[in-house]
Amino acid sequence: MALYYDEVFEDSVRFGVKVERTLHSEQSRFQKVEVLETTRFGRMLVIDGLFMTSEKDEFFYHELLVQPAMCTVAKPKDVLIIGGGDGGSAREVLRHQDVERCVLIEIDEAVVRASKEWLPTIGSAWDDPRLDTRFDDGVAFVKEREGAAFDVILVDGSDPVGPAEVLFSEEFFRGCQRLLKPGGALALQSESPVYFRDTFVETQKKLGGIFQTVRPYFGPVPIYSGGVWSWTLCADSVDPLTPVDARVEAMTGGSQIYNADIHRAVFALPNYLRRAIAAG
Amino acid sequence: MALYYDEVFEDSVRFGVKVERTLHSEQSRFQKVEVLETTRFGRMLVIDGLFMTSEKDEFFYHELLVQPAMCTVAKPKDVLIIGGGDGGSAREVLRHQDVERCVLIEIDEAVVRASKEWLPTIGSAWDDPRLDTRFDDGVAFVKEREGAAFDVILVDGSDPVGPAEVLFSEEFFRGCQRLLKPGGALALQSESPVYFRDTFVETQKKLGGIFQTVRPYFGPVPIYSGGVWSWTLCADSVDPLTPVDARVEAMTGGSQIYNADIHRAVFALPNYLRRAIAAG
Repeated sequence: MALYYDEVFEDSVRFGVKVERTLHSEQSRFQKVEVLETTRFGRMLVIDGLFMTSEKDEFFYHELLVQPAMCTVAKPKDVLIIGGGDGGSAREVLRHQDVERCVLIEIDEAVVRASKEWLPTIGSAWDDPRLDTRFDDGVAFVKEREGAAFDVILVDGSDPVGPAEVLFSEEFFRGCQRLLKPGGALALQSESPVYFRDTFVETQKKLGGIFQTVRPYFGPVPIYSGGVWSWTLCADSVDPLTPVDARVEAMTGGSQIYNADIHRAVFALPNYLRRAIAAG
Repeated sequence: MALYYDEVFEDSVRFGVKVERTLHSEQSRFQKVEVLETTRFGRMLVIDGLFMTSEKDEFFYHELLVQPAMCTVAKPKDVLIIGGGDGGSAREVLRHQDVERCVLIEIDEAVVRASKEWLPTIGSAWDDPRLDTRFDDGVAFVKEREGAAFDVILVDGSDPVGPAEVLFSEEFFRGCQRLLKPGGALALQSESPVYFRDTFVETQKKLGGIFQTVRPYFGPVPIYSGGVWSWTLCADSVDPLTPVDARVEAMTGGSQIYNADIHRAVFALPNYLRRAIAAG
């Protein structure tokens, strides 16, 4: 019998999906990795009880993490993804013909293995020769790597609890900045501004002390409860609000969401967040 | 002991809020009306098991139903609200000093009574002398009323099942058009484009056959599952995308969300909906 699997937030709200069956369940060295067959969203990746991505709604997240930064930077050749073990962000990066190399550093091999087996439509670019997948600690990689080697860095991690907490540290952000080539950009998921308001505001503040241009942006992700998700684009010499329409137009045909109107619209900041950031 | 109260959608997803206690529960002539004290969202109005509005998140819905239309129409004096028994939309309308009269037609007196008692911060304008609250059938009112009497009409109804189904009919939309003064606009909630995609697309098609300008727009409502909600603004001789910044700026200070950037941003149409409307 199908049962609901709930993601509970701070013991005050829960979002549940009906599950037809469990396709994969594994306790890796780092976390519990599950793939569920759900009634509404198709196959869904769940890590430590948190809904990560699903076949039916993954484009809401992956297009918005990846495309604003990729279309802001002129001719991005070298891209680094920290996390992103489901392969969706790499797929979006590799749609860009200018990309010569995409290094994906996922700490947990189990996530990539489960995603390759059960979520092939999300990670449809695993076999692209430009993709260099490494199972390693992305934070250590950023810390140790020398030289400005990347045009775009994408942080595609989990909530800032447990292993992903360091992905929200000032040291990590400064490390990313150091690895960016001139004209480069960093984009990261920056949590729900509704449920994780404090994390969102603190992250903006930290980034604002590091990068010249810090632009939070927003969009829905149906399997993420709270109604709206946020990402943040950071750069020192480019700005996503400078017109970039030609590059955006080239990505529109193959995108479910992303187009020139959306590229501009997602950066609109509602007053309650404008005020929270100003007060933060 | 606090328990979760779930809104279930098509037996495939559910969104649950933890409830401290039930403040009000009543089977009216039309529907079951409940007010719950929730852990996260404060007091919440629930009708027939559907989450309607809450103290903590109501501005996401009410500002976006009301302000784009009110700021698109020049000096709106006469406003009609169909539904809206919680009073939030009336409050947003009456923030406009140009408004001389706001007629609110709510079919169910029980909704207004419960809202006045338990949700006074949402319906904070019930005593405004410009507000004319009537307990009547809004569809019949629109059908029978003669003459173009309103600058703005707002349809603030429930999902298109049961009593609210007629609020999505072509006849009702044509009736609204007939009641609009020249330069007027209609705005309605048009459902989740994720969970009620068919309803959303059909509604756009119906409205497109009636009004010169039909612009769907989008925003999050945390207590509405699915990540994004839609409203639609319809008019024959005005367009929300024509710059209306002075009017929008006047509303920004008192708004939680609404500002000039948001006014433009909400109308951005993602490709999956652009294509669904084109194919519909």
